[in-house]
Amino acid sequence: MGELQQYVQKIGRRAREASRFLARTSTAKKDDALRFMASEIAKNEDVLLAANARDVARARQDNLEEALIDRLSLTPINIKGMIEGLEQIADLPDPIGEIDGLHYRPTGIQVGRMRVPLGVIGIIYESRPNVTADAAGLCLKAGNSAILRGGSEAIHSNQAIAACVKEGLKRAGLPEDAVQVIDVVDREVVSHLVKMTEFVDVIVPRGGKGLIEMISRESAIPVIKHLHGVCHVYIDAFADIDKAVQIADNAKTQRYGTCNTMESLLVHTSVAGDVLKKLAPIYLAKQVELRGDKRACSLVPAMTQASQEDWVTEYLAPILSIKVVDSLDEAIDHINAFGSHHTDAIVTDHFGHAQRFLTEVDSSSVMVNASTRFADGFEYGLGAEIGISTDKIHARGPVGLEGLTSQKYIVIGDGHIRG
Amino acid sequence: MGELQQYVQKIGRRAREASRFLARTSTAKKDDALRFMASEIAKNEDVLLAANARDVARARQDNLEEALIDRLSLTPINIKGMIEGLEQIADLPDPIGEIDGLHYRPTGIQVGRMRVPLGVIGIIYESRPNVTADAAGLCLKAGNSAILRGGSEAIHSNQAIAACVKEGLKRAGLPEDAVQVIDVVDREVVSHLVKMTEFVDVIVPRGGKGLIEMISRESAIPVIKHLHGVCHVYIDAFADIDKAVQIADNAKTQRYGTCNTMESLLVHTSVAGDVLKKLAPIYLAKQVELRGDKRACSLVPAMTQASQEDWVTEYLAPILSIKVVDSLDEAIDHINAFGSHHTDAIVTDHFGHAQRFLTEVDSSSVMVNASTRFADGFEYGLGAEIGISTDKIHARGPVGLEGLTSQKYIVIGDGHIRG
Repeated sequence: MGELQQYVQKIGRRAREASRFLARTSTAKKDDALRFMASEIAKNEDVLLAANARDVARARQDNLEEALIDRLSLTPINIKGMIEGLEQIADLPDPIGEIDGLHYRPTGIQVGRMRVPLGVIGIIYESRPNVTADAAGLCLKAGNSAILRGGSEAIHSNQAIAACVKEGLKRAGLPEDAVQVIDVVDREVVSHLVKMTEFVDVIVPRGGKGLIEMISRESAIPVIKHLHGVCHVYIDAFADIDKAVQIADNAKTQRYGTCNTMESLLVHTSVAGDVLKKLAPIYLAKQVELRGDKRACSLVPAMTQASQEDWVTEYLAPILSIKVVDSLDEAIDHINAFGSHHTDAIVTDHFGHAQRFLTEVDSSSVMVNASTRFADGFEYGLGAEIGISTDKIHARGPVGLEGLTSQKYIVIGDGHIRG
Repeated sequence: MGELQQYVQKIGRRAREASRFLARTSTAKKDDALRFMASEIAKNEDVLLAANARDVARARQDNLEEALIDRLSLTPINIKGMIEGLEQIADLPDPIGEIDGLHYRPTGIQVGRMRVPLGVIGIIYESRPNVTADAAGLCLKAGNSAILRGGSEAIHSNQAIAACVKEGLKRAGLPEDAVQVIDVVDREVVSHLVKMTEFVDVIVPRGGKGLIEMISRESAIPVIKHLHGVCHVYIDAFADIDKAVQIADNAKTQRYGTCNTMESLLVHTSVAGDVLKKLAPIYLAKQVELRGDKRACSLVPAMTQASQEDWVTEYLAPILSIKVVDSLDEAIDHINAFGSHHTDAIVTDHFGHAQRFLTEVDSSSVMVNASTRFADGFEYGLGAEIGISTDKIHARGPVGLEGLTSQKYIVIGDGHIRG
């Protein structure tokens, strides 16, 4: 076993040990630790800003692109966000220990399910240093140890935040190994981390699609992953046109770079003329580039012809593809075939169409008469999210505390034996 | 792409297509299909027995071991079991479409979760031909397409059962591709199947540990797996001795070859003398070989010294390892360190000890004053099980219909946009 692998194994063994302690730690103690972490971050704002300045200076020196430097930069507002985030997590109800459906069986035993931590969670992320505090806080509240591996470009910021997190754990009397930050830059540590099945229960990669695909391929540990969002709004023949226009505008233009932004608009042929007459000027005024199929192009002269590629593309930019469809079936088929199973919405006043869309569209969030931009852990009331899962297994859609837990069966008898 | 890969891809594409149909199929229609499958099997009992006789004759010719031939053999009783199994699945409530926790958010949108099929499930199994009917039935009821790949030794039996299944689907007006049986013997098809992430959502291997480990290593698709059961009973200082003896006897000797059979007995030092004085003669009368640590050996002369290997071994045989421990903590630590996180029980009358055991033992089933032999989908009231998961992700413990489903978020608005 190489030196790096030994190092990662040591971290894993410590994390597993700490996780046994956390699994039996009281809610009050976990919440204390979260609030102490928040107060340590508040107390050390200057230290955090200075550490971050080093990372940013280095990034500029290395000519990293501006968007990345933007994500990397900590400001007093970001720091306030981290503090509030940790305090919000402390305020959330503790999911651990909750017992569901305990009932008597004909044999006389009682059977139910108890919510328990997953154990050890590995978080692999890029750029944004605030993930260090957010992820550590969520994992801790759900009773899990966390092993955090941030981007090398954010190393000083992450270490400074980790120091506050560890101080918070210490002040609450919790093991410091409950949150460990890997600060070895060598990429090889990630390869070891995602293969350490005996010490890590789940891997959560956060970052670009490239990172996530690479981790998924490499990992021997289950991965909760968010790939990409090719989200649709379908404006049905029975849509209220004003609401449709409002939703299609909001879903595209409220923010361009988020995964729940609409990338493809489908419009029923019977309302396409009315809808696009109102929508096109709104988009064009906001400088959204429109790419349509033949029929859409014929309705809006300022539209260019969409290629096959457009229907599967997550633009994350002021570009929108538009397709005119002949039926609800065609819309559902298109979304299931070309979408990314992230978030899709129908605008309709037809009850049966709404029901069919909800049932048949195979996405992590399916909406009726609402903007796709609502697909978010905070909007859903999860309190916080570790990410949005585009998988169907374990956790689907925004993943909050519950996604970081598991349920085990509990059985209670009084000397019962099987006959 | 090779010929075999093309063949598997074609099966995958058809399964995906059928799964879209099943996702919107009514409960009544699915139940009809299940009952038609059962009646086809009843009608074709002679055909099934003849097909099975061919497999068994071939197995004998190939000198397969007797235990395997036993698992392979169909009898009128097995066939009755398949028929009743399918009818029972038809009687179970349909999990699909169930909406959980729909509630209003401050923004005015309603958010909830809808239970939906996973999509396409690949089942890879050995020997037992009844899995063909059981697995097909469970997948169908949960709205999933199934791709079944049984052992080559059972090929004629599996084909005969599959013909009944397909006829049942047809009679109910469901696509025959909802259940497909791969009857190419070449092992390479499995390698293609477990890598077809675009068409298969989850893989369920059923068989020996070797098969399951191999599939898990090879699969690019999430696997619901049952590895092995190194199950414990811990007899606490505060145990009722009579109940303890009864449970420890039942957990070991009711059946030797099942995964929920106790393989290791832990006894608190303060009751070890009393307990073993009563238990040892029971085990010895049933010819159970006893292997103990030093202290256990000093109490029972007929015991041999256990090796380190014994504490992690699933015997599946009349052998039991016995260890005397000094505390509840030592018992919990031993179980978490040496067990397989399957099923573990405590016998105690001490409330706090029971609570701690339930909370701190990290196993898929944790029991108080009951025999580990209860860990089973039927005993838990799931109606049927596709297997017992020793994973923590997605499904843990006995996996029934719910484990073959997922929950998606649904959002209902009335023109709501994000501010």
